Amino acid sequence: MNPISNMDRAQVLNQALPYIQKYSQKTIVVKYGGNAMINEELKQAVMSDIVLLSLVGIRVVLVHGGGPEITEMLKKIGKESKFIGGLRYTDEETAQVVQMVLAGKINKSLVSLLHRHGGKSLGLCGMDGGMIEAKKLQGEVDLGFVGDIVKIDTAPIEVALNNGYIPVVATVGTDQEGNTYNINADTAAARIAAELKAENVILMTDIRGLLRDKEDESTLIPFVQVSEVPSLIRQGIISGGMIPKIECCVEAVRRGVKKAVIIDGRTPHSILIEILSDQGIGTMFY
Amino acid sequence: MNPISNMDRAQVLNQALPYIQKYSQKTIVVKYGGNAMINEELKQAVMSDIVLLSLVGIRVVLVHGGGPEITEMLKKIGKESKFIGGLRYTDEETAQVVQMVLAGKINKSLVSLLHRHGGKSLGLCGMDGGMIEAKKLQGEVDLGFVGDIVKIDTAPIEVALNNGYIPVVATVGTDQEGNTYNINADTAAARIAAELKAENVILMTDIRGLLRDKEDESTLIPFVQVSEVPSLIRQGIISGGMIPKIECCVEAVRRGVKKAVIIDGRTPHSILIEILSDQGIGTMFY
Amino acid sequence: MNPISNMDRAQVLNQALPYIQKYSQKTIVVKYGGNAMINEELKQAVMSDIVLLSLVGIRVVLVHGGGPEITEMLKKIGKESKFIGGLRYTDEETAQVVQMVLAGKINKSLVSLLHRHGGKSLGLCGMDGGMIEAKKLQGEVDLGFVGDIVKIDTAPIEVALNNGYIPVVATVGTDQEGNTYNINADTAAARIAAELKAENVILMTDIRGLLRDKEDESTLIPFVQVSEVPSLIRQGIISGGMIPKIECCVEAVRRGVKKAVIIDGRTPHSILIEILSDQGIGTMFY
Amino acid sequence: MNPISNMDRAQVLNQALPYIQKYSQKTIVVKYGGNAMINEELKQAVMSDIVLLSLVGIRVVLVHGGGPEITEMLKKIGKESKFIGGLRYTDEETAQVVQMVLAGKINKSLVSLLHRHGGKSLGLCGMDGGMIEAKKLQGEVDLGFVGDIVKIDTAPIEVALNNGYIPVVATVGTDQEGNTYNINADTAAARIAAELKAENVILMTDIRGLLRDKEDESTLIPFVQVSEVPSLIRQGIISGGMIPKIECCVEAVRRGVKKAVIIDGRTPHSILIEILSDQGIGTMFY
Amino acid sequence: MNPISNMDRAQVLNQALPYIQKYSQKTIVVKYGGNAMINEELKQAVMSDIVLLSLVGIRVVLVHGGGPEITEMLKKIGKESKFIGGLRYTDEETAQVVQMVLAGKINKSLVSLLHRHGGKSLGLCGMDGGMIEAKKLQGEVDLGFVGDIVKIDTAPIEVALNNGYIPVVATVGTDQEGNTYNINADTAAARIAAELKAENVILMTDIRGLLRDKEDESTLIPFVQVSEVPSLIRQGIISGGMIPKIECCVEAVRRGVKKAVIIDGRTPHSILIEILSDQGIGTMFY
Amino acid sequence: MNPISNMDRAQVLNQALPYIQKYSQKTIVVKYGGNAMINEELKQAVMSDIVLLSLVGIRVVLVHGGGPEITEMLKKIGKESKFIGGLRYTDEETAQVVQMVLAGKINKSLVSLLHRHGGKSLGLCGMDGGMIEAKKLQGEVDLGFVGDIVKIDTAPIEVALNNGYIPVVATVGTDQEGNTYNINADTAAARIAAELKAENVILMTDIRGLLRDKEDESTLIPFVQVSEVPSLIRQGIISGGMIPKIECCVEAVRRGVKKAVIIDGRTPHSILIEILSDQGIGTMFY
Repeated sequence: MNPISNMDRAQVLNQALPYIQKYSQKTIVVKYGGNAMINEELKQAVMSDIVLLSLVGIRVVLVHGGGPEITEMLKKIGKESKFIGGLRYTDEETAQVVQMVLAGKINKSLVSLLHRHGGKSLGLCGMDGGMIEAKKLQGEVDLGFVGDIVKIDTAPIEVALNNGYIPVVATVGTDQEGNTYNINADTAAARIAAELKAENVILMTDIRGLLRDKEDESTLIPFVQVSEVPSLIRQGIISGGMIPKIECCVEAVRRGVKKAVIIDGRTPHSILIEILSDQGIGTMFY
Repeated sequence: MNPISNMDRAQVLNQALPYIQKYSQKTIVVKYGGNAMINEELKQAVMSDIVLLSLVGIRVVLVHGGGPEITEMLKKIGKESKFIGGLRYTDEETAQVVQMVLAGKINKSLVSLLHRHGGKSLGLCGMDGGMIEAKKLQGEVDLGFVGDIVKIDTAPIEVALNNGYIPVVATVGTDQEGNTYNINADTAAARIAAELKAENVILMTDIRGLLRDKEDESTLIPFVQVSEVPSLIRQGIISGGMIPKIECCVEAVRRGVKKAVIIDGRTPHSILIEILSDQGIGTMFY
Repeated sequence: MNPISNMDRAQVLNQALPYIQKYSQKTIVVKYGGNAMINEELKQAVMSDIVLLSLVGIRVVLVHGGGPEITEMLKKIGKESKFIGGLRYTDEETAQVVQMVLAGKINKSLVSLLHRHGGKSLGLCGMDGGMIEAKKLQGEVDLGFVGDIVKIDTAPIEVALNNGYIPVVATVGTDQEGNTYNINADTAAARIAAELKAENVILMTDIRGLLRDKEDESTLIPFVQVSEVPSLIRQGIISGGMIPKIECCVEAVRRGVKKAVIIDGRTPHSILIEILSDQGIGTMFY
Repeated sequence: MNPISNMDRAQVLNQALPYIQKYSQKTIVVKYGGNAMINEELKQAVMSDIVLLSLVGIRVVLVHGGGPEITEMLKKIGKESKFIGGLRYTDEETAQVVQMVLAGKINKSLVSLLHRHGGKSLGLCGMDGGMIEAKKLQGEVDLGFVGDIVKIDTAPIEVALNNGYIPVVATVGTDQEGNTYNINADTAAARIAAELKAENVILMTDIRGLLRDKEDESTLIPFVQVSEVPSLIRQGIISGGMIPKIECCVEAVRRGVKKAVIIDGRTPHSILIEILSDQGIGTMFY
Repeated sequence: MNPISNMDRAQVLNQALPYIQKYSQKTIVVKYGGNAMINEELKQAVMSDIVLLSLVGIRVVLVHGGGPEITEMLKKIGKESKFIGGLRYTDEETAQVVQMVLAGKINKSLVSLLHRHGGKSLGLCGMDGGMIEAKKLQGEVDLGFVGDIVKIDTAPIEVALNNGYIPVVATVGTDQEGNTYNINADTAAARIAAELKAENVILMTDIRGLLRDKEDESTLIPFVQVSEVPSLIRQGIISGGMIPKIECCVEAVRRGVKKAVIIDGRTPHSILIEILSDQGIGTMFY
Repeated sequence: MNPISNMDRAQVLNQALPYIQKYSQKTIVVKYGGNAMINEELKQAVMSDIVLLSLVGIRVVLVHGGGPEITEMLKKIGKESKFIGGLRYTDEETAQVVQMVLAGKINKSLVSLLHRHGGKSLGLCGMDGGMIEAKKLQGEVDLGFVGDIVKIDTAPIEVALNNGYIPVVATVGTDQEGNTYNINADTAAARIAAELKAENVILMTDIRGLLRDKEDESTLIPFVQVSEVPSLIRQGIISGGMIPKIECCVEAVRRGVKKAVIIDGRTPHSILIEILSDQGIGTMFY
């Protein structure tokens, strides 16, 4: 990387000004996952971005998944991961592992990492303060303890934000009987954003955004009105694993989030670029 | 159990009054462990006691260990537990498991249980808000990632208490490099109590208290001045596994906690009896 | 009384938990009078109950009458008490005595008693902060300075509650000209409960509750919908001195108090039993 | 009275400005008694002065006695007042009457009067919130329940002031056993002023102030340093009933009150003139 | 001036009581201008009145003009003042002078004067906190930078009031491009009063009020309903320079100010007399 | 300027993170003057920097001078500027002009500019809230109304900061008699910084910093301990107009400001570079 002159530095900081103003004291929910969670360098960049955003006065909530680490832990205890239609079949033992890995390992390690980047954070899961009430996901196939969100109580998140902590949220929930459910992190991020009346929910993915031609990154579609989504699905432009992600975006916008963005977690500092420049990267739904 | 008359009920509630007054808005740290954590019925009784104390205006902090569940999980992943001088040898992989089991499984399950008993709680570990800064425990033998407490920042606990949540604390800590350490829960409870200027720290154990004659429960010593402890050790009345526990009590009292109590977690509702009656059970150090 | 075992004690406290939760931070207005005000032992029990409820987080307001002491004082100054239709004829001198006895003697003595049971309280009357604006009660017979409530300003009560004091209220009121009125304490309690949007108003009486057969205490009617009251009056089940008391209950419920209860003040700790157990005693109107 | 021109009115208001500034948000304790309490017109003037001072931002506390009304009530119930060395012998029955008359009759009537002059006030006595803890006054003669102040807890007064109420204080106190004591109002006012770190304590009397020649009002001594008092007593200038009053002044100043003033309650609006003009009337001790 | 007796003083203060009560914590906007701004003695009287009102708990906002000083300064720099239809033609250089004289000279000197009379004040202009957004006044003739109010943001005024400062407001405004506009002070005072939901807006003028016969001061019309104004204009009773002033009054009342008053600034302490006596002087519109 | 890649942008923002953390919620006083105040582009850059710093959570106070504009205005009114020893001789008329130009023209125009860059600000001078009390500067020569600071009351600045406004301060002061004084802006900035216990005071100048060889910018001395200053003066390295500036720095550091920096206002964004990078520019005194 070329050295950047002081002048250029000042220029860049200066150009960030209107964006900082725009998001000042606003809430942004970031769903963190995929490659950016596995690659060590990207991970450090994300943590540093989150701390920076938090420091310039943005109320950032970090929601995370952790599929690969769950799979790995299940393998360690000699249990095979079983997926049905892209969703993990979750028996009781698996649910325990999910809770343990998400809320104990990944969540607290993220908290620790943020701390090392100078941020103050609290690691929460859907059980804390009864934050995520879940019920068994209904569908054609029985997926065990895969949960559907019944109700979100954002009080613990707000207590964290109001006391200067970055809330890091692991998406396990419980029902009235105390069963543990595995909750899809994209869905949870979208719902939490809606409940917090967030300005923005950002889903980090491993793709460039929504491409008109999947083979050609230059065909990125930067803006999509949520009303256009059904037609894009019909045209096959939104397809496969993108469908649930984009449905989360649509859901979030429908419930009052100003915008929902899918960004490429493989680009370092993609969150900063998305928030603090006019170079929105990825695809924004509004 | 005989039915209790309304009159007796009123009587009992009434007699609890001076104790409730005494502890109103005071902080009590309860170290929860041992049999009371394994036996399902005792567990429910502890949770219900904690919620009740919290409801009558006592600021309760629940600190827990979880040795047996760690051992079990290590076994599951095919790793044998190794103890040196009563302390678990903790290599990096073990430290990960400790974090996962304590902060992810036990901690959040306790939070969930408290919730079902009508309490609001937040599950924290020593990483949250940088609460427990640790360093490698120095000693004759290398125990790996067994930690010594460097500094406690009680802000996350106080945020929880001040917002009406019961803080549940898993005692894993980190150092500046982000290494995870396994911290002894008795020690952590004592130190947290000291930092919070708690009124009382209660260590739940699997014995009746300090007995003059280990074979005879009727020889229970109800009160011990901390200055008497060295002599009791010399006499062999305090010995074996009791020594570190009682050193935690002494340490807590030295650092300003009004009293430190060892109670028998095998008796149902032993916490309630200890706090809300004149029948202090177990042994109190002051 | 048989000794109660620690286990039973814990059990009782434990069973009170859901009731404490239910009323936590809610307001309860207790109209205190009758035998429970004369019998010294019952009096102590009531004071202790009030302090306990206040301590476990319930906002208790104590409203009291004091007919017998007024009569006694009038006798002392050589003035006979005159009753018309159960209501005291109140000339100006009598009104002065009523104010003096209620607001100076009984009220402040209750404050002092609560203090000795460990409670903090403030003794108020309807004149404080202009709390009870009254006017001459209109009716067929002229009762002198017997007052009808025009307006309640609960600010002084709320100042007391919000600053941790138990408000004790003597029910004398004034009109714009500064005349003193004797206000029926049941009516005042019901109105104050309504203005405070209380959860519960409890009227202490000298009977067991509403009995289907006045001679047989086993015919107690535990629950009455306010809509059933007219029919119960017609049937003669509600009659005599019960009518105005029950009309206060109906009025309170109509104005938004969740429930109004008539309890037997002759039973020690009847308030505690009513609030903190499922053994509601007396008759509840909802 | 001659009509006052608008110009003169404005002039007067204007000249009050520096005094209002000086006392803004400061605390002034007024001991109200004597002729100003008996004469109806003077009483109205005092009430109106108190409301005005309170309105212009001065924290006024009104402390009152009530000897004549106590005597009158005792007479009504056929009990003779007995005085020893100027102090009322107070048996238990008398103590009850004192409490009743001071806290129930006079206190609440003053509250009601202030209300009619547009002020908001709360009527308190030494029992409220455990404000005045007393013990039996020790001396050569047994005076019964005449009390000496052990401790003042000004919390109830401050709650009133901070919530915009003028506290009106009847000076009856209690001991730990709940006995009622008659407390000298001058003494109580001085002590309350000291505890509140008041700017000023004003004792209303029925004399012009401290006169060098008791027969000649023109010999008024306007300022006295507390250190001069012993000499003035020796010279006989301070004598008789003035001694205890002036000792209260000295005590107040010694305990930190800026100044203590004895004013002539027989002059209408003497409080206003004292506070809001440079024509301090009466004698000031500093 | 005759000496005023203490009694009269007390009388006057006493009679001000109901007016102080009426305006306590209410907002009053005073437009200060004309003779009262030029004559040194009147100026001192106004400042002292403002401080007094502020001290007795009235939230006073002082809005000022400054035509003569602007004219004088323009003359100094060799620029002639040009008026069209009573309004100053304001080229860019003039606008600079207006800003400088109003916001720098007059405004800050008033702040300094209030300070010397014991008041705390902050000098603001329409630029502070973006308080007055203006645009070019549209009309038949081009008046240059004479502004029309687009929007008032009263936050800076409220910050001042809530922190105990008297806000002094110079009526220059800006548009989005940063141009400076000269804003009519009467209009600004009326609008600010409306935005603050003021109780009263007082315009100081150099006439006695609205006179039925301009030559005869005894024909003062003390009260005018805003609905009567058109008819009064038609009758010629309101005419000339009075028309815009009275239109400001009408506008203020229409936008929710309780009353708008035109008072004679040539009478010393006219503000005090208007606010604190029943001798409203001048003409009140309601 | 070359286009800056997104990656570089993110990099720059990221590298600013530790500096933002360091100054978060800390106070920085910037003395703005010289070329940066005259050159339009530099001015815009300064305003934008101030807004950015304020937005990322730094409490920025902007103190300004305005010599050239004062000179220009004096010339306009036909008055010559007279300097004695580098200080402007200030007769009464000049003092008026100083007040008018500083507090009315420059100050409010800066407020307006900050507003256009998205900042909220309040324009204050030393008269507001009695902020700067001054007295005549004593010296060999009579300089008229050139003031020496007697006392700073920072309340108005803190009110502005605490309510989210950037305080812009014009350095005119007054004495008890209400005379206006011209106060040196460097001195005022240093004193204000000291009173606010600021982290940093930054003086903008028209030179590169302290140079070992005045002719060679590469001989910049980046750090100076205040104790070294006398020796640097003796060596002639600090000389001429630098002496008073550096004495301000020394004074500020002596009074508790962490560091005082002289930066080159001719470099665009020099404030940003100074604060948000490790490339401190200019000379820092500590």
